[in-house]
Amino acid sequence: MTDSPVAPRTSLTSPTPLTLLGTGAMGVALARAWLAAGHPVTVWNRTAARAEPLAAEGATVAASAAEAVAANRLVVVCLLDDASVGEALGDADLTGRDLVNLTTGTPAQGRARATWAEARGARFLDAGIMAVPPMIGHAESGAYVFYSGSPGLFEEHGDTLAVPAGTRYVGADPGFAALHDVALLSAMSGMFAGVLHAFALIRQEDIAPKDFAPLLVSWLGAMAPNALKAADQLQSGDYGKDVVSNLAMQVAGNATLLATAEEQGVSPELLTPYMALLERWQAEGHGTEDTTGAVELLDARGGGAPGGR
Amino acid sequence: MTDSPVAPRTSLTSPTPLTLLGTGAMGVALARAWLAAGHPVTVWNRTAARAEPLAAEGATVAASAAEAVAANRLVVVCLLDDASVGEALGDADLTGRDLVNLTTGTPAQGRARATWAEARGARFLDAGIMAVPPMIGHAESGAYVFYSGSPGLFEEHGDTLAVPAGTRYVGADPGFAALHDVALLSAMSGMFAGVLHAFALIRQEDIAPKDFAPLLVSWLGAMAPNALKAADQLQSGDYGKDVVSNLAMQVAGNATLLATAEEQGVSPELLTPYMALLERWQAEGHGTEDTTGAVELLDARGGGAPGGR
Repeated sequence: MTDSPVAPRTSLTSPTPLTLLGTGAMGVALARAWLAAGHPVTVWNRTAARAEPLAAEGATVAASAAEAVAANRLVVVCLLDDASVGEALGDADLTGRDLVNLTTGTPAQGRARATWAEARGARFLDAGIMAVPPMIGHAESGAYVFYSGSPGLFEEHGDTLAVPAGTRYVGADPGFAALHDVALLSAMSGMFAGVLHAFALIRQEDIAPKDFAPLLVSWLGAMAPNALKAADQLQSGDYGKDVVSNLAMQVAGNATLLATAEEQGVSPELLTPYMALLERWQAEGHGTEDTTGAVELLDARGGGAPGGR
Repeated sequence: MTDSPVAPRTSLTSPTPLTLLGTGAMGVALARAWLAAGHPVTVWNRTAARAEPLAAEGATVAASAAEAVAANRLVVVCLLDDASVGEALGDADLTGRDLVNLTTGTPAQGRARATWAEARGARFLDAGIMAVPPMIGHAESGAYVFYSGSPGLFEEHGDTLAVPAGTRYVGADPGFAALHDVALLSAMSGMFAGVLHAFALIRQEDIAPKDFAPLLVSWLGAMAPNALKAADQLQSGDYGKDVVSNLAMQVAGNATLLATAEEQGVSPELLTPYMALLERWQAEGHGTEDTTGAVELLDARGGGAPGGR
């Protein structure tokens, strides 16, 4: 069977036609990637002038969202926000449609939109794009998209969805794509805050940012895998497992970080909330454990985070 | 000359003998690495019982710090804090000594200690260790140490210093080793805060931390190089250069991060200071630029950070 002369399925199949609602910067990048791969694409945009240029590149421009949705079974939506999705699809007949929502939103919005779409006869996938528009359509950029929701839809259209960016299906719960997306962006936000503080510390000194930055990038890349150990501790519930630098040592070390900020004339505002969280967790008797357990203090529902809400 | 039969210098030279003050977890790891490489090591520790076990591994245990300093020209100090360094060396004759201070401290402490040591006739290098004890003596661990201060000392003893961990000399200013050290640790602290928030978001859901963590590690590793662009912008002073996702877009996106935290019952306390900083910078008219310029708001001396001090 492995030496079968039968050509792979992709060369026997015509590229799937699809509809794309929304031609902002991301929508245009997506449309171009599908057009370049030979997929017939019907586009619609609320401000029609933004969709017109794609006609010259081979796209069909629909006069209304309802008309665009009627054109193809696979309908991809990439609009400003979840409210825009409801507005755009208000008059469309979704019966039998495979709706893929690339619009940025929260997990609850993804779940509600799935219920809404299914009630109207569509299969639904929510998505979270881990890329900026210039990365779309370039496999080497590492761009990928989280998908969650209908497994059948993903199985059927996974190859088409993989044209503009890599795909990672993270479960049938339609909220999981947005949750993964937001969780990674939140972690990145913390990293960028730390990077900004680091640059603030060195910028008044005779240290070239361009000499310093590669050290920073290597260091963060080397330290990021600590998250693997944290995951292991979270899964086992044992925060005292494989501890190298315990919470008490890290709290003590934070004094040097604060003193240095003071010396350099840099506000510590980006660092202090994490330091305060670690101190609260230490005060609760976890000094000999790893810092991972402090995650419990972030549970706003449990009332564990007095400074949080 | 390149085909000279003369053996490399290292094989003709006996390993340099050295003194190590301080045998806590890091000191012991350092001593073992030097002993394993054949360096005669004289050790001293305030609590003598902690130094004794090293005698069985070939170290000479000195009765006092002054005696240990008298034993060798190269003196490495790895104590609890800068005050401990002053106490330990109070009675020692530092004339002609090459003092390498691996004790954790701030840039100002490094500079003051350099002046102090030089006034007493020693050459001085300050250092910042980018490793935990288990990484010492294992080249594959990636452990390294920042050094700054006397270029002559580093040139003469760089090979010996490279035995327990890699070496990075970052300038004659004795404050620069600590500054590099603290800047990287501060950035890491921000990253870990972001990682903790990310885990908090997913932990109440049916998502295994061990499945999620590798995605997080890859993402952070892929996004860390944004610091290279930030360095370029800081060096040119042009925060509007090569902008892909501008400040206004990021501020808008933060609303989804906050809404998701709210949905998941997670306190946003670790994310909000950075978000507030970006909003302040946007309010000052930088919405179309990159976020890098917000570093200016962290200048506590310039009065730019109302929430900072």
